[in-house]
Amino acid sequence: MAGFLEMLTGPDASRLLNADATVIVPVGAIEQHGPHLPLAVDHIVASEAAGAVVDRLGDELNVWAAPTLPYSKSNEHAWSAGTIWLSNETMHRVLDDIARCLAFSGVRRLVFLNGHGGNSTLLNVACREARLAHGLLTFLIHPFIPPAYAAPDPDVASDTELGMGIHGGLRETSVMMHLRPDLVDLSKAVRNVPEWLAENDHVKFGGSVQFGWLSNDFGSVGHIGDPVGASAALGKKLFDESVGFLCEQLREIVGFDFQPCD
Amino acid sequence: MAGFLEMLTGPDASRLLNADATVIVPVGAIEQHGPHLPLAVDHIVASEAAGAVVDRLGDELNVWAAPTLPYSKSNEHAWSAGTIWLSNETMHRVLDDIARCLAFSGVRRLVFLNGHGGNSTLLNVACREARLAHGLLTFLIHPFIPPAYAAPDPDVASDTELGMGIHGGLRETSVMMHLRPDLVDLSKAVRNVPEWLAENDHVKFGGSVQFGWLSNDFGSVGHIGDPVGASAALGKKLFDESVGFLCEQLREIVGFDFQPCD
Amino acid sequence: MAGFLEMLTGPDASRLLNADATVIVPVGAIEQHGPHLPLAVDHIVASEAAGAVVDRLGDELNVWAAPTLPYSKSNEHAWSAGTIWLSNETMHRVLDDIARCLAFSGVRRLVFLNGHGGNSTLLNVACREARLAHGLLTFLIHPFIPPAYAAPDPDVASDTELGMGIHGGLRETSVMMHLRPDLVDLSKAVRNVPEWLAENDHVKFGGSVQFGWLSNDFGSVGHIGDPVGASAALGKKLFDESVGFLCEQLREIVGFDFQPCD
Amino acid sequence: MAGFLEMLTGPDASRLLNADATVIVPVGAIEQHGPHLPLAVDHIVASEAAGAVVDRLGDELNVWAAPTLPYSKSNEHAWSAGTIWLSNETMHRVLDDIARCLAFSGVRRLVFLNGHGGNSTLLNVACREARLAHGLLTFLIHPFIPPAYAAPDPDVASDTELGMGIHGGLRETSVMMHLRPDLVDLSKAVRNVPEWLAENDHVKFGGSVQFGWLSNDFGSVGHIGDPVGASAALGKKLFDESVGFLCEQLREIVGFDFQPCD
Amino acid sequence: MAGFLEMLTGPDASRLLNADATVIVPVGAIEQHGPHLPLAVDHIVASEAAGAVVDRLGDELNVWAAPTLPYSKSNEHAWSAGTIWLSNETMHRVLDDIARCLAFSGVRRLVFLNGHGGNSTLLNVACREARLAHGLLTFLIHPFIPPAYAAPDPDVASDTELGMGIHGGLRETSVMMHLRPDLVDLSKAVRNVPEWLAENDHVKFGGSVQFGWLSNDFGSVGHIGDPVGASAALGKKLFDESVGFLCEQLREIVGFDFQPCD
Amino acid sequence: MAGFLEMLTGPDASRLLNADATVIVPVGAIEQHGPHLPLAVDHIVASEAAGAVVDRLGDELNVWAAPTLPYSKSNEHAWSAGTIWLSNETMHRVLDDIARCLAFSGVRRLVFLNGHGGNSTLLNVACREARLAHGLLTFLIHPFIPPAYAAPDPDVASDTELGMGIHGGLRETSVMMHLRPDLVDLSKAVRNVPEWLAENDHVKFGGSVQFGWLSNDFGSVGHIGDPVGASAALGKKLFDESVGFLCEQLREIVGFDFQPCD
Repeated sequence: MAGFLEMLTGPDASRLLNADATVIVPVGAIEQHGPHLPLAVDHIVASEAAGAVVDRLGDELNVWAAPTLPYSKSNEHAWSAGTIWLSNETMHRVLDDIARCLAFSGVRRLVFLNGHGGNSTLLNVACREARLAHGLLTFLIHPFIPPAYAAPDPDVASDTELGMGIHGGLRETSVMMHLRPDLVDLSKAVRNVPEWLAENDHVKFGGSVQFGWLSNDFGSVGHIGDPVGASAALGKKLFDESVGFLCEQLREIVGFDFQPCD
Repeated sequence: MAGFLEMLTGPDASRLLNADATVIVPVGAIEQHGPHLPLAVDHIVASEAAGAVVDRLGDELNVWAAPTLPYSKSNEHAWSAGTIWLSNETMHRVLDDIARCLAFSGVRRLVFLNGHGGNSTLLNVACREARLAHGLLTFLIHPFIPPAYAAPDPDVASDTELGMGIHGGLRETSVMMHLRPDLVDLSKAVRNVPEWLAENDHVKFGGSVQFGWLSNDFGSVGHIGDPVGASAALGKKLFDESVGFLCEQLREIVGFDFQPCD
Repeated sequence: MAGFLEMLTGPDASRLLNADATVIVPVGAIEQHGPHLPLAVDHIVASEAAGAVVDRLGDELNVWAAPTLPYSKSNEHAWSAGTIWLSNETMHRVLDDIARCLAFSGVRRLVFLNGHGGNSTLLNVACREARLAHGLLTFLIHPFIPPAYAAPDPDVASDTELGMGIHGGLRETSVMMHLRPDLVDLSKAVRNVPEWLAENDHVKFGGSVQFGWLSNDFGSVGHIGDPVGASAALGKKLFDESVGFLCEQLREIVGFDFQPCD
Repeated sequence: MAGFLEMLTGPDASRLLNADATVIVPVGAIEQHGPHLPLAVDHIVASEAAGAVVDRLGDELNVWAAPTLPYSKSNEHAWSAGTIWLSNETMHRVLDDIARCLAFSGVRRLVFLNGHGGNSTLLNVACREARLAHGLLTFLIHPFIPPAYAAPDPDVASDTELGMGIHGGLRETSVMMHLRPDLVDLSKAVRNVPEWLAENDHVKFGGSVQFGWLSNDFGSVGHIGDPVGASAALGKKLFDESVGFLCEQLREIVGFDFQPCD
Repeated sequence: MAGFLEMLTGPDASRLLNADATVIVPVGAIEQHGPHLPLAVDHIVASEAAGAVVDRLGDELNVWAAPTLPYSKSNEHAWSAGTIWLSNETMHRVLDDIARCLAFSGVRRLVFLNGHGGNSTLLNVACREARLAHGLLTFLIHPFIPPAYAAPDPDVASDTELGMGIHGGLRETSVMMHLRPDLVDLSKAVRNVPEWLAENDHVKFGGSVQFGWLSNDFGSVGHIGDPVGASAALGKKLFDESVGFLCEQLREIVGFDFQPCD
Repeated sequence: MAGFLEMLTGPDASRLLNADATVIVPVGAIEQHGPHLPLAVDHIVASEAAGAVVDRLGDELNVWAAPTLPYSKSNEHAWSAGTIWLSNETMHRVLDDIARCLAFSGVRRLVFLNGHGGNSTLLNVACREARLAHGLLTFLIHPFIPPAYAAPDPDVASDTELGMGIHGGLRETSVMMHLRPDLVDLSKAVRNVPEWLAENDHVKFGGSVQFGWLSNDFGSVGHIGDPVGASAALGKKLFDESVGFLCEQLREIVGFDFQPCD
């Protein structure tokens, strides 16, 4: 049996959260996503993706989903009402507390499933911290990696977003239309793409120079991308692909362990 | 319109989270509750109570529920697998970050709705911190105040729990049987009451001397109380009464403001 | 022999601060108490109460009073000249340092004797922190618990203070007239009672809703209560009763230890 | 005139470190690099690269190099004698102190030139922190990005390192043979490549799953890669290409500024 | 009128703690001082010296003594039961909190009167911190500077202590025999002088090389010096001289202010 | 063999950084030194002095120089562009991280060679912290101790600096003319001596009262002293004498160990 960690009793946890178990900690965010999407986007996506993965693979792979962290480091949206963000230091402390408790419980594998792109480098740091401090095997996966934090997908280089659809754009809006259509107001969706940035060779999302940006550095609209053509059908396709990919990643994760070369 | 803060868009938040709005931050916990209850008890109770209150009064009183904090300071259960706790310092930083963001958003009234007795004194401290640091009007309410943190209810002084039913006992178990019967295994419920403690005059739950305790100071069972006679019917009664009382408290909170005496 | 910890030599401390000894740490404050009382009220009351208790019971119960902490978390009076307050984080660090040293010395029982109501929830938290971090048995006692932090005394519900005499009011002023009449100027005493607050059902001192307040939220006078009728005779009665009660509490504390239920 | 910040006088700094100037902070490390390379590799590479860039472009672009941070977060090598590492929290504080001072001096553009791959995600976080806290335009560039932190170079996918040459391998050794041949002992160089890791689809350096690793997770040799075929000629080629690329990046950086989309 | 800060009322403080006032914060310690002296030595000496100075000069110079900090950084005596020490970080936070409050109150001059040699460098740092953070004029004075922290007195170079009487030796014991003879047990006094250290040219108390030491680095006795010949008469002479000198220092302090050279 | 720590490989470090080795950590600063000297003065002096000492004695005494800390606590110059300073807390964390790593590496003796007078009391504190936390033997030495932190040299009492040449004055300027004449512009040198301070009996550099000062408390020029008569010849003499003295100190340090008196 596997599934949601919080449904276990203490004695269950003592028996089941052992060295063979893997715990996923979904990381959400409460942050502005433009006029057409709710603050909860990342909270919902992380929770839904973790739930889908655990539903599909929990029993088979002995994987447990812990409760989603609703708040995380969203300070690129600090300027907007409704954004509730933890500081870098707070966030590291929260993650360390969680890792410490899971290691104490007997778990060896901790997976951060990150719904908010703005956390990805921080969580990468946290993976090493928990590896060293608590001896855990730690992993970081994403339902969707925005191009701000990875090389852009060449398939979308020519689309209306110019590879700059990093926050509340076509894909994220579509996924929300699939998961929670009641929370999307497509009539408010407008194109908001920093075309000047896409023209750069190096300093751009996914470029060779990483840079510190706040979402209001690109104006007051809030999202960055072009959600106008979003659809639930595209969202379903993207979400299903993502869950499939997360499951593939998890299969490798649960079998992963370090081996000395010498 | 009012309800769940995370369903707002950024522009909505800018408009609605104003000086007339009140935001509830429900505080849960993931911690052992004995062999018959899940780790999620406080997470569920806080979330359900906040949801019920907002459903009933949100629109009328302009009250918004923020996402429930799933993890909090549960270090009295640090000894048990499955308990995931934030340190005192981490917890204060989280609360300060949240309060700062709400104040920045324009809100004036912040209400902590606390599902975990172990947080109550910490949250009391946090109320003052947020009052001074961020100028918020801050409040602390509980669906259920365990006798460990308040004078015991004279009505229950003679029952089988001897006023010591502070964690996973008759009441909490009953409430969970009402809210989430699928997560209660009453067949595992046993009486675990520190009778020796009840005999003290001062050093006891709700006594005149407060004391530092861990739940394993009372043995290895985990809960403290007597859940044996719990029932969904009692749970429903207790929960409904609690929601009614919380609504009454909130009516006073939304009208509250300080007045100089001179 | 027992008494004041600071009068011991190092070798004495090594011999006497053992598992049978109990150490009291009195916690004072330097904070405004209105125009008729000195900043030192809580410093004096905590020190005098601890001294009286140790004089009476020190030898018999092997109880030692450590030096009084003069400064503590008085940030509800931050607005007033003369108030010297430690932040929440500083205060927790100070208490943790003290608890660590006492545990290292070999003591098992640590009692905070708190003269400043504003510390009571923080010290309650600290009791658990020291229990978990240092393995100490920890306790919190008060010479006087103001109604801001406990259920109001029904005996005083009808008096001129309306249960709101929480700071520099009738009782505290009387006690100071008994202990240090040279530091009280009753000619400056005026009634300063938030009558509007007493009319609340829930949000009030000792009410079911706890709230974050600063003493200047009630105006610029500083004290909250009605010291006009204070007298040394009442002060003596209250102080003597308090010392008697503290001694009764201590008798139970020194015999207290945890027992497993199972 | 431009060049090395530390050679300025205070009055010079006041005049020259203005809104048009760009300051590079090179970030080194003191950490084990296997038996054939010195602890100083990243310290030297970062300093040399910054020096070369400033020599070539300093005057033209008004770019200043601050002194290289010799110590940084090298905790993946904590197990090895000689590694001197700053904790995550220390490192963020150091970077924040530096950014604060540069912003105070009047500079608007801060570039971290990072010689140690293990810092790259932390520095990415720091870029946002400094953007928000101090209003700086912040950038992160690397002389060499190891595949542990970026998609692997398809050109090298078939080589003896299998894309796993992330630390003290062919390229880094060659560069050191170019820069400081006196500090390389190629007779000690051995192949140390985690072939098992290269076989993974997701959990590997540059794979879709990021993971927490320590260099001794791969055995006790210390470096990860195959330095056997390293040469000064290759090192010169790589270093010159890198400096050329850094200069190209800097040209874009000094002209970069945010533009609202709306 | 001047004297003890804690005896002021809030309104008095508002009026009197102004830019012309100087506040002394005496800093004590609770730490082992060998078998013949109590833990309280530094607490008593700092308090008595501050009291004597304020008695003599308070009114004339508008100088106020705040309550003595009983606990400070005594970690060189961490090995001994009874020593209660604040960490370096805690101590700085306490001092910053105090300085902040005094600056807020309107005071411009803050004087640390330090009874514990082990604090002297820390307090020197704190003087600058408070100068920069709070704009205070800050000063550090000592009733007695042990040779561990200053050049040794040539007059005592040939005595039985060899300039190494830094803790619980002839002078400190004599002063305590004058101030609190009831707390000195001269029958326990033995000579404990690190003769080997006195033979060094550089690494010694007051030498050109400062070094990190703990009192148990010199054995298990605790004090360092030779108290055998101590007397109340010598103590009175030393104390009176010290108070005279502190008064002379204070006269200069209250008139001190910075003047630009240009 | 001995010399520069960063030139070692990991395996070398494991073998050579043992209990017989001594590691010097030079501490520099980047801070204004007036109009005639560069920001790098302390960085250069500390590095050059450490290099000279290791060159002369490294092999003989098994002494290793770690990379110089370029940034340290220079907050007395926070007002000046170009000064880059670490806070007190950051600096202590950096030093603790370094000490921890050296202790882990197997070293027993750590020497701070401090080029910036403003660090001297902080480093004195750090010596004790590292002694207690990491068990190291710790030492603090200075190429030049300015009179702000030590008793003034009677030989210079009558010179044009009046004992107040503490920063960028005759000596420091001369040493820089010797070490890096290209970075000194003597045509900008002016006399800037706080004559009013020299007239004080107690509150002055090297006086009996230590005080918190910032360099702009003495005006806007930046240096404090009289560099007008500086010369490379004097600088060479001072530097050579200093290196000779540091070597003498180090000879004693490497043979130093604690001995119990009893």
